[in-house]
Amino acid sequence: MFESAELGHKIDRKTYDKELPALRAALLEAQIEMFKLAKFPVIILVGGVDGAGRGETVNLLNEWMDPRYLQTHGMGDPSDEELDRPMMWRFWRELPPKGRTGIFLGSWYTRPIINLVHGHSKTADLDQSLERAKRLETMLADEGALILKFWMHLSRDKQKQRLKLLEADPKTRWRVTERDWEHYKLYDKFRLVGESVIRHTSTAEAPWTIVEGFDSNYRSMTVGKTLLDAIRKRLDEANKEITEISAPPPLPSIDNLDILKTLDLSQKIDKKNYPDELEKYQGKLALLTRSAKFKNITVIAMFEGNDAAGKGGAIRRITGALDARYYNVIPIAAPTEEERAQPYLWRFWRHIPRRGRLTIFDRSWYGRVLVERVEKFCSEADWMRAYGELNDFEAQMVRHNIVVVKFWLSISKDEQLKRFKEREAIAFKHFKLTPEDWRNREKWEEYEQAVCDMVDRTSTEIAPWTLIEANDKYFARIKVLKTLCQSIEAALKNIENRKP
Amino acid sequence: MFESAELGHKIDRKTYDKELPALRAALLEAQIEMFKLAKFPVIILVGGVDGAGRGETVNLLNEWMDPRYLQTHGMGDPSDEELDRPMMWRFWRELPPKGRTGIFLGSWYTRPIINLVHGHSKTADLDQSLERAKRLETMLADEGALILKFWMHLSRDKQKQRLKLLEADPKTRWRVTERDWEHYKLYDKFRLVGESVIRHTSTAEAPWTIVEGFDSNYRSMTVGKTLLDAIRKRLDEANKEITEISAPPPLPSIDNLDILKTLDLSQKIDKKNYPDELEKYQGKLALLTRSAKFKNITVIAMFEGNDAAGKGGAIRRITGALDARYYNVIPIAAPTEEERAQPYLWRFWRHIPRRGRLTIFDRSWYGRVLVERVEKFCSEADWMRAYGELNDFEAQMVRHNIVVVKFWLSISKDEQLKRFKEREAIAFKHFKLTPEDWRNREKWEEYEQAVCDMVDRTSTEIAPWTLIEANDKYFARIKVLKTLCQSIEAALKNIENRKP
Repeated sequence: MFESAELGHKIDRKTYDKELPALRAALLEAQIEMFKLAKFPVIILVGGVDGAGRGETVNLLNEWMDPRYLQTHGMGDPSDEELDRPMMWRFWRELPPKGRTGIFLGSWYTRPIINLVHGHSKTADLDQSLERAKRLETMLADEGALILKFWMHLSRDKQKQRLKLLEADPKTRWRVTERDWEHYKLYDKFRLVGESVIRHTSTAEAPWTIVEGFDSNYRSMTVGKTLLDAIRKRLDEANKEITEISAPPPLPSIDNLDILKTLDLSQKIDKKNYPDELEKYQGKLALLTRSAKFKNITVIAMFEGNDAAGKGGAIRRITGALDARYYNVIPIAAPTEEERAQPYLWRFWRHIPRRGRLTIFDRSWYGRVLVERVEKFCSEADWMRAYGELNDFEAQMVRHNIVVVKFWLSISKDEQLKRFKEREAIAFKHFKLTPEDWRNREKWEEYEQAVCDMVDRTSTEIAPWTLIEANDKYFARIKVLKTLCQSIEAALKNIENRKP
Repeated sequence: MFESAELGHKIDRKTYDKELPALRAALLEAQIEMFKLAKFPVIILVGGVDGAGRGETVNLLNEWMDPRYLQTHGMGDPSDEELDRPMMWRFWRELPPKGRTGIFLGSWYTRPIINLVHGHSKTADLDQSLERAKRLETMLADEGALILKFWMHLSRDKQKQRLKLLEADPKTRWRVTERDWEHYKLYDKFRLVGESVIRHTSTAEAPWTIVEGFDSNYRSMTVGKTLLDAIRKRLDEANKEITEISAPPPLPSIDNLDILKTLDLSQKIDKKNYPDELEKYQGKLALLTRSAKFKNITVIAMFEGNDAAGKGGAIRRITGALDARYYNVIPIAAPTEEERAQPYLWRFWRHIPRRGRLTIFDRSWYGRVLVERVEKFCSEADWMRAYGELNDFEAQMVRHNIVVVKFWLSISKDEQLKRFKEREAIAFKHFKLTPEDWRNREKWEEYEQAVCDMVDRTSTEIAPWTLIEANDKYFARIKVLKTLCQSIEAALKNIENRKP
């Protein structure tokens, strides 16, 4: 795999000096065009062996391009705020918006590689990480990102030679540390793992470019030209109409039996018992969230449901039991300008709380497979691929000890009509009813189909859907509270059982 | 000052139960109206003595109001990311956008009070902090925020009684800690300092409401009604046209002599010497920013100047000397939707970097007293008050070891014309010239006046303006680099001299 990058590639000074001005001008021009178009971001990952010129190359790109539309992220040690969230959060927060370029020195590949080379993890762990990385990149590419991955390579001898050269020059001596020599000893292992990473994650949408790092002219020119070529091609495509192709969407149940129809919406609890039940579960929730162990977990509770199904009421029964300092309710509305410049999931990632907190989403990332699907706000290919992406998103949270609790509040079509009319009648509740609600109601069956497909595809062992029969709001609220308590209890028990 | 809050205020259960539903409904309605109007945020600060019901009151507000448009911030210990920035950064990042409410349990008053009570600081320090707090609140109020400050009070005896009561009940016992009893011993001192804080910071735009905290019905009703009244009044005013009154703007210099006219724009350096000079100062900058001590400071370099004065070129000569991982260039363009929902300075606060980093602003917070003044994008009162606000902003940075370097790049009207024509002629530079540039040029004298006023009012000992004679771009770049190096050098020396 590294054969071509050990041939001793070289570009002489004269050729380099001759070609550079045109390359720089073209890069700058492409960058401006990209910024004005604001249709896609460029994400550049830079990895490879020590001494192969990763940092120099990045600095050079910064010199060639307009630093106003380019940001470089040295992904060193995570901050405490970053450690409190899933591993990928620190990358999400630095993703370049459409029209701009982000360079990551150190990427989602760095930690998995280092861990395996140093014997802190197993090959199976690496494979899992790579699988996840690939899925992430596919998603970013589907969202429009142009992804370029550069691997700076040196043969073992050349690495030694480079490190010696750097050490010999007083100007660059500081850049060679003992750790570099430590790493050098692990060269063979690193090379092997690197090769495996490149082999598994070089995809059509995010290929690796292996660059021989010894000759700086060759290295810089290769990176610059690869980057220019990729941006230019994308710019040329950007104005073409692209027809996305996806597998046909799921068929409705052919025997007219579906998961929503199995719900017994007539379930209710005696209104007399409601206050006691409410106090009981609110008390339980209060105790659970105030326990010392709670600061080790994070809870994300998410509400979807028919219009007027009582999401707001259920949410208030939860927050009523909580300490206001440790929860947050995120109402999901139309994305803001800054959110629209990012991949779909960005606006949810940004609200993932620190440990020891509970965040409630009033509507959620499932909007893509519900309202966006039914109202055709996104393409069929977009919502078809979303199921897997949403599962991946939740899996990342769960791996980080985040308890993900998902509620679908279900009411019958008749019950909805009754509630709409009530809202119309009561001045104070009037603001709760919009013309949109009536329009959505006309598409009842389509929404029902979307909900069934969603539950079938995203109710997982680690983040199951809880369907709430909500014709009786008291029943619904108690079931929500009970489910939430059970989930938190299980998570706290899990923490306890885990070996320290 | 606390006399009225020690009278033993009380509201009996019956009255409370009778009045509560109407209060809740009205609060909810006001909140929705406020959200729909999206013209002002509500900022609520809650302080006072232990056991006076601060937390309970906040939780109750959360229960009464819609938690989707309300967020509570328990300002506990700062995170490492927060410690790396000026003290106020953590409040700025949590400010509620227009239409929403933010409750701060613990505020910018907490630390100064605690420090004085515990003898870690002097009265003079407190006075300074209060002065700053007042200026901040005035600014927030001028930006439209509705600010409410509640001080929960208990007499010494009542505090003891409350703490004992809480301890006696198994349900609330956990809430009384040893620290509360420690604090109790300091009651008299705390009361004294509290009084002084309230006296100095109860202003027309952000008054304190002292609330007797013993009887929870009285306490809750008082806070709820005060809040409702304030929001209602503001909503009623919101639709009125408000004429802001300010002192008359500065007159132009009456003898036609001003700071810009004193610049010798003919200064230049020999083009032959430029490469050497450039290398010299870039090398120096590289060394300074890579020194071990650099990680203790933060550098913010800011560029303003005439159109086509060469800001971009000067910035690239700086970034060319830096490690791409540790700098960031922020081009200031029109504010985004999220930025428009916040006070003016919010969009600059969000870009303040962590320690050991350098951030370059290409145009800056001075937009308010330059383009916004001249083009009348804001009212006269807005830009007239801005001078003081911008000075305050920079003072906060400097206090936090941030080196603030401000450049004005000045070219003559003739030189600008020459450059505009060049840009028109060269296809590649065409994108740099917009019709707006020509329009701005017509207002040359007005901009000149704005620049002179700006320099007169915001060139301070701690954050002086450096005027750059930029008709010769080589001269300008070297002077910029030289100034930046000197500022960083001085800051590093300062760090060294400081006692540990």
